[in-house]
Amino acid sequence: MITLSIVGSGNVAFHLISALKEAKGIQLTQVCARNPERIKHLIGEDKIVSTPDALQPVDLCIITVSDKAIPEISEAIPFQQRLVAHTSGSVSIKALSDKNYRAVFYPLQTFSVDKTVDFEQIPICLEAERAEDLDLLEEIASSISKSVYHVDSEQRKALHIAAVFVNNFVNQLYRIGFDICQSRNIPFDILKPLILETADKIRFLTPAEAQTGPAKRKDEQTIATHLAALNDQQQKAIYTLMTQTIQSK
Amino acid sequence: MITLSIVGSGNVAFHLISALKEAKGIQLTQVCARNPERIKHLIGEDKIVSTPDALQPVDLCIITVSDKAIPEISEAIPFQQRLVAHTSGSVSIKALSDKNYRAVFYPLQTFSVDKTVDFEQIPICLEAERAEDLDLLEEIASSISKSVYHVDSEQRKALHIAAVFVNNFVNQLYRIGFDICQSRNIPFDILKPLILETADKIRFLTPAEAQTGPAKRKDEQTIATHLAALNDQQQKAIYTLMTQTIQSK
Repeated sequence: MITLSIVGSGNVAFHLISALKEAKGIQLTQVCARNPERIKHLIGEDKIVSTPDALQPVDLCIITVSDKAIPEISEAIPFQQRLVAHTSGSVSIKALSDKNYRAVFYPLQTFSVDKTVDFEQIPICLEAERAEDLDLLEEIASSISKSVYHVDSEQRKALHIAAVFVNNFVNQLYRIGFDICQSRNIPFDILKPLILETADKIRFLTPAEAQTGPAKRKDEQTIATHLAALNDQQQKAIYTLMTQTIQSK
Repeated sequence: MITLSIVGSGNVAFHLISALKEAKGIQLTQVCARNPERIKHLIGEDKIVSTPDALQPVDLCIITVSDKAIPEISEAIPFQQRLVAHTSGSVSIKALSDKNYRAVFYPLQTFSVDKTVDFEQIPICLEAERAEDLDLLEEIASSISKSVYHVDSEQRKALHIAAVFVNNFVNQLYRIGFDICQSRNIPFDILKPLILETADKIRFLTPAEAQTGPAKRKDEQTIATHLAALNDQQQKAIYTLMTQTIQSK
């Protein structure tokens, strides 16, 4: 049995606890949470502690706190020479205190407490300073996900940037679609099947193969009509820049 | 029994023929196709004609040709005072020849021949010059889709612009994600669950509620690190503009 503890009570912690408490061969011994209310229905209250100094030694301690808090929290862990991982896409493995062996356990997904996710489908990106620690990380990651990758710090940083484009920026384009609909009294629901199909296509086609529309077919008349109809300066700027980018490829 | 013909053999025609030939109460009498090879497995070869002048009078003729060809093709239809619709998001109903009653039958979806779509889930946006024609259009649209809307020309134009943002531009962001992965030898598969979840969230949350990431939380340090890591000037410009747009809301 592999013993494991988690620090944090945010969205990542919430979904990680839900997945790990069901995992075979894993014993989730403690959770350190500032907001125990959010997680106490997931795990016995006797296993919840409020500060890191109450954490007992385990095979792996996963820290799911904000990027800035990683150095301080990892330093506050009372044990040494065990394996400690953070879950951040953008923070170096070296941000962790070196009193323990350092690792990264980065689930590449967008999490909301309100929405259940199927952890089996979530890619987990692993990194460890010592090669022997990768085996343990892989055993743990494989117990909750079918999709486990070794990703070094440089690759992880690039992945996080790519994730900002395909998640945050894509979502902002959804928001522009929402705003355009609202300004014309059109129900946003009308766009949802298109949004879902656009994402689904990527399972079968590369984005280059999937591209369609006025920019791709250099339909300058439609592009000009669209630009003339957009009053919002930011929407206009995004339309122009995205059209240029599509046409330059 | 409602009689119906289709002009075109592109992606929209392909999926429309597939859906309408199975629809109850609809008789697809003819298809006018320049490229009969693409559609002859869908419908008897005796029903395929190569030029519009061979089309017989029907209750509704749907023209699925390129935007530019709509005036000419609708003029070439040999019958009069019947209902003729185009399927374009961006073309006015008035682009159709007025020798027939004019309408729009716009399925708001992205179509590829290679990928089957569930027509039942596709919103169909209807417009007609004569109020009585809307009933017939609605009966036909409802026979293949659960989601039928009355959308006037101004709304349809706005919808088409919104569709460019949530489909073409979103897909271009997927492409940037793809390119970033490829440049670092990271499998693009690792981003697919995030792409699918980002779209799926929209079914339950508004885009404003769903937004996360460094721009939203004004994490200027991560934003600066990302910008420094991007070498491609267009990627940098998109990152800057999308970040500003997220932060201005």
